[in-house]
Amino acid sequence: MSASDRAQSVVAFGGGHGLSASLHALRLLVADLVIDDLTAVVTIADNGGSSGRLRDEFGVLPPGDLRMALAALCGDHQWGDTWARVLQHRFAGHGEMNGHVIGNLLIVGLWEQLGDPVAALDWVGRLLGTTGRVLPMALTPLDIAAHVRGLDTADPAATTTIRGQVEVATTAGEIVSIALEPSDPEPCPETLAAVGAADWVVLGPGSWFTSVMPHLMVPQLRDALVRTDARVVVVLNLVDEAGETDGFGPIDHLAALVEHAPDLRIHTVLADLESVGDDAGDLHAAVASYGAALHLADVAVHDGSSHHDPQRLAAAYTAIMTGR
Amino acid sequence: MSASDRAQSVVAFGGGHGLSASLHALRLLVADLVIDDLTAVVTIADNGGSSGRLRDEFGVLPPGDLRMALAALCGDHQWGDTWARVLQHRFAGHGEMNGHVIGNLLIVGLWEQLGDPVAALDWVGRLLGTTGRVLPMALTPLDIAAHVRGLDTADPAATTTIRGQVEVATTAGEIVSIALEPSDPEPCPETLAAVGAADWVVLGPGSWFTSVMPHLMVPQLRDALVRTDARVVVVLNLVDEAGETDGFGPIDHLAALVEHAPDLRIHTVLADLESVGDDAGDLHAAVASYGAALHLADVAVHDGSSHHDPQRLAAAYTAIMTGR
Repeated sequence: MSASDRAQSVVAFGGGHGLSASLHALRLLVADLVIDDLTAVVTIADNGGSSGRLRDEFGVLPPGDLRMALAALCGDHQWGDTWARVLQHRFAGHGEMNGHVIGNLLIVGLWEQLGDPVAALDWVGRLLGTTGRVLPMALTPLDIAAHVRGLDTADPAATTTIRGQVEVATTAGEIVSIALEPSDPEPCPETLAAVGAADWVVLGPGSWFTSVMPHLMVPQLRDALVRTDARVVVVLNLVDEAGETDGFGPIDHLAALVEHAPDLRIHTVLADLESVGDDAGDLHAAVASYGAALHLADVAVHDGSSHHDPQRLAAAYTAIMTGR
Repeated sequence: MSASDRAQSVVAFGGGHGLSASLHALRLLVADLVIDDLTAVVTIADNGGSSGRLRDEFGVLPPGDLRMALAALCGDHQWGDTWARVLQHRFAGHGEMNGHVIGNLLIVGLWEQLGDPVAALDWVGRLLGTTGRVLPMALTPLDIAAHVRGLDTADPAATTTIRGQVEVATTAGEIVSIALEPSDPEPCPETLAAVGAADWVVLGPGSWFTSVMPHLMVPQLRDALVRTDARVVVVLNLVDEAGETDGFGPIDHLAALVEHAPDLRIHTVLADLESVGDDAGDLHAAVASYGAALHLADVAVHDGSSHHDPQRLAAAYTAIMTGR
């Protein structure tokens, strides 16, 4: 181990593609012996696509983001690679299977057979030979509700409540706040334990209101995040997202998060140097006002896609977690 | 190895529950070192249930009987047992997934991802830690057509053609002969090679016209079965089946098979002692007229269910294959 006195335990929160990028980066830190224990905690509020259909039919947690996180942690060998490809395979048939993803179906089958959501995810992890563990943020299927401004043409200042991850992610209005329905879901004990034992917690990147912030709205999980000795890293997105964060700059992202979890102590805010641009001074001041340090680094893929680059993100995580 | 000079290679033909019983028995011979190489060859004419729906949507081979054979060969350890249970899991939802079986979906996904039907089945075999290999009887999805007597009330002697495994298996008429559509499907090279290299071939038990005899209707597979040096064992069913073999005794089963493949040299006919009962003498004569030996043994489960008992079937297979 070259980078620090001891390897560290990391819990990464998110959902979808943002979490996948973060996990690809964190796997590299496991390979470099900076991390020896990696847990991904995944949102469970998806109501669209294959996950939404399975949730409607079986009343289960939406499996899609869990499956994506498992695939992102999949071992780099023919066995794991092949099963990850198969689990990520989306049917393109012309009938009832169209759009369903094999891994989602397998996870639901394991849930029904084993009766234990966490044990089932661990079985998929063993199948893929994952580096680390994937856990749900809670055990109750959830919906996101958002208070949105600007949808009422008669009164542009009025707020409207919209429900559902898909609906929130694609709203034409401005999101003022979010909540979960039900508001007090059953927490996942393994997730709470992982947060309690962590050295570092990573929030984001990802769809801000629908993948990152929902974790802070599960009461017992928020309590665990507030109470943990782990240092909290918030990873800002490279750009705003059409729909849920239209027009949001780095400071707006951070402010929305803090507003929803004012007790959370943030250790470091990681932002992309070029994305921040001229706002660096203001962002620095905002981050400092929350008692956190700002870490600016080149973490983007340079192909115009606005995605995080796993290698560059890994370098930034290593710098933050080892103090190098 | 106690039972013979050398362990032997066996190819078992069938489909559905009959093949499963045979494979459970043959696995015991592998454990006893009587067999060192076991291959299951599976019918691919199913058009009902989960398999039929997947076949309709994707134009693939019906996966259900392949899945059942893989599960029957699954290793006797927690890893294989758990995945076999999951692959055999049938969704009981109230929507589009109702009746679908996880393993069928996984096999279709592997076919789409890998593009090679045999390689995909080998991947499932590795997942389950199977004893032996499962192959399809051909590479073209097939339908069974049957000439049936007794459906035309105006002319009871007239024959009608019906199509589809489900329709044939449940016909109210008497099946006179069967054929495949298309009649010259693409053979599976690995299946032909396995037959060529086998010491023993086992046909049956199982649904006679829809699971056992279809193998003999694939022209190149029938040629391989006629030309192989392997000794052919025909395992008769315990009883007739409502629908396709209503009123059939052991001699009728055997006669139907020989009629469809007159060139096939049968080494041994295995029948259940009690099921044959008073017909033993006549069956003996019929079997002798085909140049084969009759092996009568107690191979049934004694619970009134008309199923083969794997342990007793294994004892009979051992006696036949080792001459003990």
